[in-house]
Amino acid sequence: MDSANLMKAIRWHPPSYDQRLEDIPTPMLQHPDDVIVKVALAGLCGSDLHIYRGTDKPMAIHTSGHEFVGTVVELGSNYKHSSVNDTKTEGRPSLYDTLKVGDEVVSAFTSNCGECRLCKQGITCRCPFGLLFGSPRLEGGQAQYVRVPFGGATLFPTSALKSEGKSEIAAHSLLLLADILPTGVYAAIQALGHPKLATPLTGAPWPYSLPGLTTTGAVPRTSAETNDDVLHFAVVGLGPVGMCACVALLDQLTTRYPTRKWKIVAIDPIESRRRTLETMYSTIGADGKGTGQGELVVRGIEEAKTTVSEWTNGEGCCAVLEVVGNASALNLSYDLVRPFGVITSVGVHPAKPVGFEGEELYNKNVSLDFGRCPARAMIEVAAVLLAKRQDIFGSAPGGSNSLIEAIEGFKQGPEVVKAIYEKFDKGLVGKIAFDPWA
Amino acid sequence: MDSANLMKAIRWHPPSYDQRLEDIPTPMLQHPDDVIVKVALAGLCGSDLHIYRGTDKPMAIHTSGHEFVGTVVELGSNYKHSSVNDTKTEGRPSLYDTLKVGDEVVSAFTSNCGECRLCKQGITCRCPFGLLFGSPRLEGGQAQYVRVPFGGATLFPTSALKSEGKSEIAAHSLLLLADILPTGVYAAIQALGHPKLATPLTGAPWPYSLPGLTTTGAVPRTSAETNDDVLHFAVVGLGPVGMCACVALLDQLTTRYPTRKWKIVAIDPIESRRRTLETMYSTIGADGKGTGQGELVVRGIEEAKTTVSEWTNGEGCCAVLEVVGNASALNLSYDLVRPFGVITSVGVHPAKPVGFEGEELYNKNVSLDFGRCPARAMIEVAAVLLAKRQDIFGSAPGGSNSLIEAIEGFKQGPEVVKAIYEKFDKGLVGKIAFDPWA
Repeated sequence: MDSANLMKAIRWHPPSYDQRLEDIPTPMLQHPDDVIVKVALAGLCGSDLHIYRGTDKPMAIHTSGHEFVGTVVELGSNYKHSSVNDTKTEGRPSLYDTLKVGDEVVSAFTSNCGECRLCKQGITCRCPFGLLFGSPRLEGGQAQYVRVPFGGATLFPTSALKSEGKSEIAAHSLLLLADILPTGVYAAIQALGHPKLATPLTGAPWPYSLPGLTTTGAVPRTSAETNDDVLHFAVVGLGPVGMCACVALLDQLTTRYPTRKWKIVAIDPIESRRRTLETMYSTIGADGKGTGQGELVVRGIEEAKTTVSEWTNGEGCCAVLEVVGNASALNLSYDLVRPFGVITSVGVHPAKPVGFEGEELYNKNVSLDFGRCPARAMIEVAAVLLAKRQDIFGSAPGGSNSLIEAIEGFKQGPEVVKAIYEKFDKGLVGKIAFDPWA
Repeated sequence: MDSANLMKAIRWHPPSYDQRLEDIPTPMLQHPDDVIVKVALAGLCGSDLHIYRGTDKPMAIHTSGHEFVGTVVELGSNYKHSSVNDTKTEGRPSLYDTLKVGDEVVSAFTSNCGECRLCKQGITCRCPFGLLFGSPRLEGGQAQYVRVPFGGATLFPTSALKSEGKSEIAAHSLLLLADILPTGVYAAIQALGHPKLATPLTGAPWPYSLPGLTTTGAVPRTSAETNDDVLHFAVVGLGPVGMCACVALLDQLTTRYPTRKWKIVAIDPIESRRRTLETMYSTIGADGKGTGQGELVVRGIEEAKTTVSEWTNGEGCCAVLEVVGNASALNLSYDLVRPFGVITSVGVHPAKPVGFEGEELYNKNVSLDFGRCPARAMIEVAAVLLAKRQDIFGSAPGGSNSLIEAIEGFKQGPEVVKAIYEKFDKGLVGKIAFDPWA
């Protein structure tokens, strides 16, 4: 490990649109809980553009990127297998006991301590000690090396997957576990887990569909006949996260509700994204059971409104997954959701009004879920789906159903790296993975 | 039944603040599903003020009031016991078979057909044929008689309660079932049923706290230690619905989670409301088990922020019940809710922006539930609580823990009725029940 030396890293420079491939010192351990990871691949994610485009606030120069997969090269002294210490405090996350130099790891896109009240509840996205990789407060992964705070809590060892006999998952596939697949799964399970979906999913009438709520039997109750009904969903935004959300939703529906009929409309104004999802969907359906009792269609925005109206006689979808992150996507979601429906928003929203009036939310009994995916907690669930759907998530970059368009090496030089960011910002290229060593 | 004659009714007149006690024709059956009810008591509810104060749109003169209890005096021909017909279509709600002239009934504050897809799912508040009593489209209950559309679906026969041996529930207590108690129960069970509360309630870490979501066991998982934690709640707004929400929340917590510790801060700027709730709370706690492992405190707005911060070390409440219906109540709820928490809003909101920015909702992982209580579906649940807590909900009007301040008779004349509305609008009197015959 050449921590005294320089390394290549993509650095954000103020005020905006100035991404530079530079030589900077390799990171060093700063805390006994730290891990230094040698990066194999680092993703370029749509939410990187929030910083790339600049903000109102002055920001420090920093290394970009919050998605990376790599290999452990150095462990802090709180790790049992650290070269500087072989003891460990009891009761900490087990990875402090087991992680070794040479282990392959994926990092959640935010660090988390793993030991606070929120982390123990699985709410790793709101750990008070958590930081976003690739932000002014924590150097990112688009570099040859990266320092991971609370490595024993933040990192996911890919051996956890390999013990399942899935030893052949490529780095470009594992990279999806850093952010986009957990976030897509999060959108799907939040929507399906909402109590307003309990009635359409189970057939029990509200409120008896809620856990723990029973009637005495002495009062009359209505009966629902929803098991023959079709469940309708919309997914707004078919960037990489939206596509993951579609696959996760399909998987949840077919595995947890195999006898239920459902329809999904997946929506994006960009035709190439719609085409990619169609290819993915045909992959899923290829085994004759992947889609169960359901149907997914891909639509532009206006067509989608017509489709939902026709499908539901104007009622709307029981849940809408919003994977864009702005007021117009929320408004479209409102138009598409049925009364007493759920909008699950995993998009990263700006500091602008959401655009809803109280009366319209009241008048439609809308429920909304906002916020960042608790990535480290969700990686565990997403990893199962990653292994299961290697036909999609294992596709070689650039393939017709691949979420990653290309792997780009740092050796192409600063001008090429700068141009990649520019093209990505303009939507001229899809998701890119950087190989810092190629 | 003197349907050809005149009756007394409180009528809304444009443009605003002009409530008149008048003689108008008694209502007649307009549809075979209709029921005519002789009103025993009709409530004056805070949301009546939305119309009282006028709107931007021109509105027709109409009878006010959406809360009433009374006796069936005439049945449409689709009822088995109608004087004009003794047949009935099969498969309709059972009340079309059983309802008789002379039966005591409470009406949900909105009508609902009971037979559409939404009604069968218990989403009676969003029945496409449903109307709000006391609005330009459906004459209200502050009258001697009222026509109830879809009576077989909209009405709740109090015999359903009496069969439980609760024959002594007074009309002023049954009146609470029209709106405020179901709405309070709705707020409580929506909050407790939200998947974001599954972890604090059960101790299972997110996302494994969600129904149907299991890990393969091959991946590491964090463990939650929440069963020893205290659950924190806030209730914003202690009008009659807010008080019902408090009692419902207390009941749900003590009956469904008897071993869990919890704390509730109940918030209102008006001291008299805080005092009433304190009296109610002491009633509940009087038997030594009503409050279980918990504690409820009553606070003004600024004090409440301090209390929640102290209780939770600045983290916030796992759920906030918003029972006011405006942007400032929502903003207070945001301040009080913890990251990954739930705001359940049952307040009737105006056509104004909710005031949230997307970024703040994202940054705190907030979930929000809006909308009208599915009253007819919730009456069934609320009735159980009404019978159980007659020590509170049976209190004589004007008592220190009563939700109803006084019963006012129509015979006092138009000027008194007009003055009651004026005082209610200014917050000078609490909840009033009208007796149209006294």
